[in-house]
Amino acid sequence: MSEKLLLMTPGPTEVDPRVIKAMIRPSIYHYDQEFISLYDETEELLRKVFQTENDIIMLPGSGRTGIESAALSFVERNERVLAITTGTFGNWFIEILKVHGADVVPLSFPKGGRINMDEVKRILEEDKKIAAIAMVHNETSTAAIYSKDVEELGEMSKKFDKIFMVDTISSMGGANVPVDKWNIDVCITGAQKALGGLPGVSIVSVSQRAWEKVLKRNVIKSFTLDLLRWKLMWVKKERGGLLIRGRRSFPVIPPTHLILVLNEALKIILDEGLENRFRKHIEAAEEMRLLGKEIGLELFPEEELASPTVTAFKVPEVLTGKQIRQVMREDYSILVAGGMDELSEKIIRVGHMGYTANKDFVRRTAIALEGTLYKLGFRKR
Amino acid sequence: MSEKLLLMTPGPTEVDPRVIKAMIRPSIYHYDQEFISLYDETEELLRKVFQTENDIIMLPGSGRTGIESAALSFVERNERVLAITTGTFGNWFIEILKVHGADVVPLSFPKGGRINMDEVKRILEEDKKIAAIAMVHNETSTAAIYSKDVEELGEMSKKFDKIFMVDTISSMGGANVPVDKWNIDVCITGAQKALGGLPGVSIVSVSQRAWEKVLKRNVIKSFTLDLLRWKLMWVKKERGGLLIRGRRSFPVIPPTHLILVLNEALKIILDEGLENRFRKHIEAAEEMRLLGKEIGLELFPEEELASPTVTAFKVPEVLTGKQIRQVMREDYSILVAGGMDELSEKIIRVGHMGYTANKDFVRRTAIALEGTLYKLGFRKR
Repeated sequence: MSEKLLLMTPGPTEVDPRVIKAMIRPSIYHYDQEFISLYDETEELLRKVFQTENDIIMLPGSGRTGIESAALSFVERNERVLAITTGTFGNWFIEILKVHGADVVPLSFPKGGRINMDEVKRILEEDKKIAAIAMVHNETSTAAIYSKDVEELGEMSKKFDKIFMVDTISSMGGANVPVDKWNIDVCITGAQKALGGLPGVSIVSVSQRAWEKVLKRNVIKSFTLDLLRWKLMWVKKERGGLLIRGRRSFPVIPPTHLILVLNEALKIILDEGLENRFRKHIEAAEEMRLLGKEIGLELFPEEELASPTVTAFKVPEVLTGKQIRQVMREDYSILVAGGMDELSEKIIRVGHMGYTANKDFVRRTAIALEGTLYKLGFRKR
Repeated sequence: MSEKLLLMTPGPTEVDPRVIKAMIRPSIYHYDQEFISLYDETEELLRKVFQTENDIIMLPGSGRTGIESAALSFVERNERVLAITTGTFGNWFIEILKVHGADVVPLSFPKGGRINMDEVKRILEEDKKIAAIAMVHNETSTAAIYSKDVEELGEMSKKFDKIFMVDTISSMGGANVPVDKWNIDVCITGAQKALGGLPGVSIVSVSQRAWEKVLKRNVIKSFTLDLLRWKLMWVKKERGGLLIRGRRSFPVIPPTHLILVLNEALKIILDEGLENRFRKHIEAAEEMRLLGKEIGLELFPEEELASPTVTAFKVPEVLTGKQIRQVMREDYSILVAGGMDELSEKIIRVGHMGYTANKDFVRRTAIALEGTLYKLGFRKR
């Protein structure tokens, strides 16, 4: 692996060199006091980025690991879940809920399009059996973000006493997600996206309300993914942990070096300041959309839903996504992503999150895109 | 984390500096062809260390993640499993099997003691309902290894047509585990023990017989842990993979940098040669036992079961394990482990696996142990 490709993919994303440097360390014993202090500090830093007082749990795995841990921990077999979907990741959330026996009420809206909140409200009012609501904040597959909807649904969840589970895998750290203000009971993300870490750590925040639900059933559903085990074995006494072994023990051994990475990535975010961090992402995304349009590309999602961490353009009809991706890689050493499922060749997606959320990276990508389209005969210079 | 402690713990263990160096790389896109080549190469290297033609699957997680993926993938609800245990990790295997609804027949032998193979045989002959056998090769909690028993049980599993699942978490890479010769259908290990990698990757090998069993049921039991998904989505066509999406896709995103680490750690093993590697561990263990006895410590497990990767000594009755661990850490900057469960204060365990499997590290530890015992008033110089 000699060639250095610029990752303008919607995760994993380029990381600050500080982040790589943080893991140049010999082996670490996970119960060493110094590591535990760093681990606890990492939880605290995550609480700041999540803007929450809730418990934070880190699991070895990808974003989907966190979604699965949430699905199996907070939803009972045959329990009804309203799952709103506008793309591939929303559909995966549904798939995961179903694997664990949830009675899913899927509510689909067009890919890249708006959620009809009146319809959501109507269902919630009519179907009293719904116990939880699941949705994706930033639908990475279409580059559409649903902040207003999450906020509104959070209020309704509280009002109707539902458990509200939100996938913020490609938004947390790059977009404003005030977990407590938005009443998100279970908020899931991954380290390798807008948080600016490396793949291998999945993160879940859990509200008191969600814990109460789990403690009522008191059945262990998985040895390594059931979040109840964290409440029983890891969460500190002063935070309501139960410490059934009399001391804190990890339900699953943490990937020590990736925790060092995440710790550093979070410090970078907080050094920047959340406000600045979010603004930086908005500006990078605006620049990407502007430049994309200038070179003749059409935005895929509705403009008002355009995400600050990832941008999707329609592939011009005479071309395929693969052609564009290939020239971008071979001639410019830049990796962009295609679409997913039926959008595979119809859109291209550019990530600008964490380290790459700035105009320099975006401009370099736009210049390469222009050259690529020119080479493919779509655009005259 | 400034102070450098020498990890003589039974995993995580010290790693070769080459291993740390291998991960000093910017972000990697997991579908980049160069990464996939390295990933495939890592599978091949693992096949060599496992001495198998079976499929190899790498999951983000710890050893327990692999055990859980095996339990949920290859055992049906209410299916009977004979689970042999001689210590904490054997008991955890049972706990994990039960979480997923197996009808476990637990068969316990004394901690650190021998398995009565006649009893095992009798149960297998009498109870026709047993579909699978589970056991731990190297019981890390007592430092006892059960190679002959695994070999013998492998033959019986084949003869009686059982699925044979073996936890080799603290032996693979440090002791001879010829998976095919021993007829192990599902062999589980972790990267951070005798393989010499870092925590965060769990590894499972799967035989054709085990796959056939899974394919018969064809029910997905987990999104991120069900190994069937790897057979459907990742295993190459030429190896019998089904590639239902028409191309290889990862059921869960791999922890890219930890795969780089594992790749390098495996190359170190194969550069050494398996024979040399195993001999080195045996010699380090012999030295540890010899020196331990010289300074007045008694071996915990039966001598003939003494593991090549970890050694357990009884704590002299006038002392506690905690006292010894504390002085070792504070005065000598060496971390050794205590026992587990009721053995917590009764034994101390010294790991000598991978990078630390040599006489220098062992001697340094023995000298420190002697000084520690002297300081604690147990031994006259």
